[in-house]
Amino acid sequence: MTDKDHTPDWIEKAPLKESFRSVFKWGAPDKFKNPSQGFWQVIKQELNLSASDCQTVIKFGEETVQKNTGIAIQAEDIKAFEVIAGFDNLFFDTFSRLKYSSGKSMEDILNLRENEVKNISDIVLHPRNKEDVKKIVSLCHQKKIPVHVYGAGSSVTFGLDCPEGGVTLVMNTHLNKMIAFNETDQTITVEAGMMGPEYEDLLNNAPEKLGAKKRYTGGHFPQSFEFSSVGGWVAALGSGQASSYYGDACDLVISQEYVTPAGSFKTLDYPAAATGPKLNDIMKGSEGCFGVLVAVTMKIFQYMPENTKEFSFMFPDFEKSVNAARQISQAEFGMPSILRMSDFEETDVAMKMYGLEGSILDKFMRFKGLKPGQRCLLMGQADGEKSFSKNVFRQIKKICKKNKGLYLTGYPMKKWRKGRFSDPYMRDALNDCGVLIDTLESSVTWENIHTLYKNVRSYIKQHPDTICMTHASHFYAQGTNLYFIFITRMQAIDEFRTFQRGIIDRIEENSGSLSHHHGVGRMMAPWMEKHLGKEQMDALRAIKNHFDPDGIMNPGGLGL
Amino acid sequence: MTDKDHTPDWIEKAPLKESFRSVFKWGAPDKFKNPSQGFWQVIKQELNLSASDCQTVIKFGEETVQKNTGIAIQAEDIKAFEVIAGFDNLFFDTFSRLKYSSGKSMEDILNLRENEVKNISDIVLHPRNKEDVKKIVSLCHQKKIPVHVYGAGSSVTFGLDCPEGGVTLVMNTHLNKMIAFNETDQTITVEAGMMGPEYEDLLNNAPEKLGAKKRYTGGHFPQSFEFSSVGGWVAALGSGQASSYYGDACDLVISQEYVTPAGSFKTLDYPAAATGPKLNDIMKGSEGCFGVLVAVTMKIFQYMPENTKEFSFMFPDFEKSVNAARQISQAEFGMPSILRMSDFEETDVAMKMYGLEGSILDKFMRFKGLKPGQRCLLMGQADGEKSFSKNVFRQIKKICKKNKGLYLTGYPMKKWRKGRFSDPYMRDALNDCGVLIDTLESSVTWENIHTLYKNVRSYIKQHPDTICMTHASHFYAQGTNLYFIFITRMQAIDEFRTFQRGIIDRIEENSGSLSHHHGVGRMMAPWMEKHLGKEQMDALRAIKNHFDPDGIMNPGGLGL
Repeated sequence: MTDKDHTPDWIEKAPLKESFRSVFKWGAPDKFKNPSQGFWQVIKQELNLSASDCQTVIKFGEETVQKNTGIAIQAEDIKAFEVIAGFDNLFFDTFSRLKYSSGKSMEDILNLRENEVKNISDIVLHPRNKEDVKKIVSLCHQKKIPVHVYGAGSSVTFGLDCPEGGVTLVMNTHLNKMIAFNETDQTITVEAGMMGPEYEDLLNNAPEKLGAKKRYTGGHFPQSFEFSSVGGWVAALGSGQASSYYGDACDLVISQEYVTPAGSFKTLDYPAAATGPKLNDIMKGSEGCFGVLVAVTMKIFQYMPENTKEFSFMFPDFEKSVNAARQISQAEFGMPSILRMSDFEETDVAMKMYGLEGSILDKFMRFKGLKPGQRCLLMGQADGEKSFSKNVFRQIKKICKKNKGLYLTGYPMKKWRKGRFSDPYMRDALNDCGVLIDTLESSVTWENIHTLYKNVRSYIKQHPDTICMTHASHFYAQGTNLYFIFITRMQAIDEFRTFQRGIIDRIEENSGSLSHHHGVGRMMAPWMEKHLGKEQMDALRAIKNHFDPDGIMNPGGLGL
Repeated sequence: MTDKDHTPDWIEKAPLKESFRSVFKWGAPDKFKNPSQGFWQVIKQELNLSASDCQTVIKFGEETVQKNTGIAIQAEDIKAFEVIAGFDNLFFDTFSRLKYSSGKSMEDILNLRENEVKNISDIVLHPRNKEDVKKIVSLCHQKKIPVHVYGAGSSVTFGLDCPEGGVTLVMNTHLNKMIAFNETDQTITVEAGMMGPEYEDLLNNAPEKLGAKKRYTGGHFPQSFEFSSVGGWVAALGSGQASSYYGDACDLVISQEYVTPAGSFKTLDYPAAATGPKLNDIMKGSEGCFGVLVAVTMKIFQYMPENTKEFSFMFPDFEKSVNAARQISQAEFGMPSILRMSDFEETDVAMKMYGLEGSILDKFMRFKGLKPGQRCLLMGQADGEKSFSKNVFRQIKKICKKNKGLYLTGYPMKKWRKGRFSDPYMRDALNDCGVLIDTLESSVTWENIHTLYKNVRSYIKQHPDTICMTHASHFYAQGTNLYFIFITRMQAIDEFRTFQRGIIDRIEENSGSLSHHHGVGRMMAPWMEKHLGKEQMDALRAIKNHFDPDGIMNPGGLGL
């Protein structure tokens, strides 16, 4: 730590093997991203950090996970799992069990830094194929052993916790292969554990890798893209950064294959059908509570990056920016693939992060009446066929101009693109200095967006010395989402938990959905019955009870 | 009947009140549409009709429905229904019971012409509001009386049959009002029984009727548009003629309100959400088997007919037309709202119907190698924002040209538009001459379209003297639908039934879905378990059993 500028000496050291840090650290072990000088200055100022505050105050979690946690599964069952999946694919050391039962919420990380070992599975299995999964689920059903499914571990909703122990099935070790590619139908069928980058790489390089005529894209790029699986996207209803054009994960799924205690099945492979309620829809978002998603058939799209048109605009205030975004979403010239609308606080931070504050551009904006503390950035890109994306770009310019937006070129998009998948690395660095950072998100209609925004933000800002950056990044004719990023300092996990749960309360009370794309897990579970109402929760319970009469599939997930 | 040209003297007389004919006749009682001279010539020729064949051979159904059919519901229950819904809203005369238990399949019509009275409800109720529906469902649940829901009666799948009697709730009498209109969110909430024309009229005239700033459209125009209800569209998963752009009914639904034996609820009103499997999806297509749909909130779109661009192309063969349609659906310039792809037989009939055969245009086409018996018509229109629809039109032209399609202007669309809602009237006229006409339809992937087309068509054409016209009219990147229209003569209902069920067999065996937009009803029900597999049918049964433990809701519907 350099006293001079109060900038910490960021840790850039791969975590020790089998350490708690290796469990919670984001992404690749040897990759790091520290806050830029600009961003760190904002944090120091807004969080009112003194020199001593900038010293590390919470634990690094460098301790090795001890290997002595008891196992509630009997030896004969362990033997049976070994016979099914093979000796090499069964683990019961505490580190493995902790690793595959941990997600990436702030609370997960705080607990791991404190060397907490709780809610872990008894056994970790890496099934080799669908048949292994069938045998495991069948055995667990017979022996009433809980089954948890781990895609790639990016859950931020305690989706991987195993409060009753049991087994965790790790899908991305072996169940990560392509099953079929159909260029005529523009679909690809993959095992659920295929990771985002492999999936996209196959499609982008389809001529070389699949003998295809054209290049394709999956169109799904969540911030966790590099460390999430295709099955996870579907099971927890994720959304990618380009969802406004390509659709949310649920829109991309043509069919799914499931293994449940009540049997295995593959949903129908039709572009549309009127054969009653669709199992393909009923299973989406079931988060492992009905069964194990083993394979998915997804829509794919032509990969035409040469047609991408980037844009950005600065608006005098949030209301004008919201109006422009709503008009864009309802104007029927097609949607931009990416659209990101920041509130003034996120905009101010972005100006500092991107080194724009105080620049000539900044001065010009101020001259034009676009002032810090008010001005709001809206940016994005159009994709698709060449004239289509050009027209989307042209029409967006028109609408933004009409709403007093100042065109700022595609520059901010280029800045954003650099950090689009790597920003999560910054969290570990900030946490090392005791700066907590977490996010909650919600979907909302246009009608209710300002109420939700104001009331959730004001609750967050009531906490002293707290940054609250808000943006919307998934757009529909009927509304959008709000994504709240809060950065603060707190001494105790309990204090953080109370604060964070308070935000969920405010979201639920102000017409926001409990989640737009993070899923339910065990974090939102306590609110589910209030949010959906008893009748709808009872219906979900009935479906759960059909597929899983003994409640072994992800017990407590979804609040079921 | 004029012997000279073998053209029948079409009946243009409103059916007698309370006659069988008044039950089956399509549409308005005093509206008629007879086959054009061209179409009639095709039928005479293809069906090999002699002068005597052109005389009426099956019954007109002009007899009055007798009023003496027994009722299985006890007097005290009838009294209770009367107390709930009011004396004026309860009927138990046979005519009313028959009317609201009859759909529009060929078999329904043949039975009615034979004065058959079967599978009718015991009582017809016209609930005045949601509270009436709640009380009725509650009483029926308590007394184990079957409940059927009648939207507007356009079912072609025996969806309205009451094999175990019970009550039929008629939704479009009173439950047909607008509940809310939200211009900011572009949604409208209506009671389930609102009819298509009223719905569209409200939206088209939103400035005058709703005080809106703009005009809107619902974007849903099934052939039954004039005689179907918004609730029916959703409950049976309908598709409109402009679905390729606006989406199928299931894509248009934001939320639904249901009354079920297990309780009443309204699904969540979010543009998207990740809060587990969505009840809004689970209920769509439940065809009254889970509960009564009382209200829906639908997406609406800007009404901009000034931007419509019509087009049509003639292709040398079906394969090239399919290739063009697939490329259009996958090219990512946005979809045309209407796209209709006819096979050669439908194209030949259209050429004759529209009086084009033998014209200069016809000669030019032949000169260009576009021959009858091979050439295929593809036509449609683009909608949306002005530059968007222009670009869709321009890109479609490019693709069609590349696939050897000859541009034929928007003329065929204008011809088609005239008959788009009135063609069903022709069926009654043809039936009067003993010419049977029915349709079956299916969705299919691009990969399987030719197999499905060839095998279903060849089965239909095996029957002597039969017209089989096929088209696709709902397009997706992953596939389309095939709509088979068959016109033939048969003496007995049994013969027709065997033939028609044989077509369903061929569809199911050749990778077609059991239905693309007609729904399941009781017609497809026997195939459902084979089509979906036992595991998926068991899941639907479990959901049914949750909402309706005694099986009173539309018993036998969906095969549940």
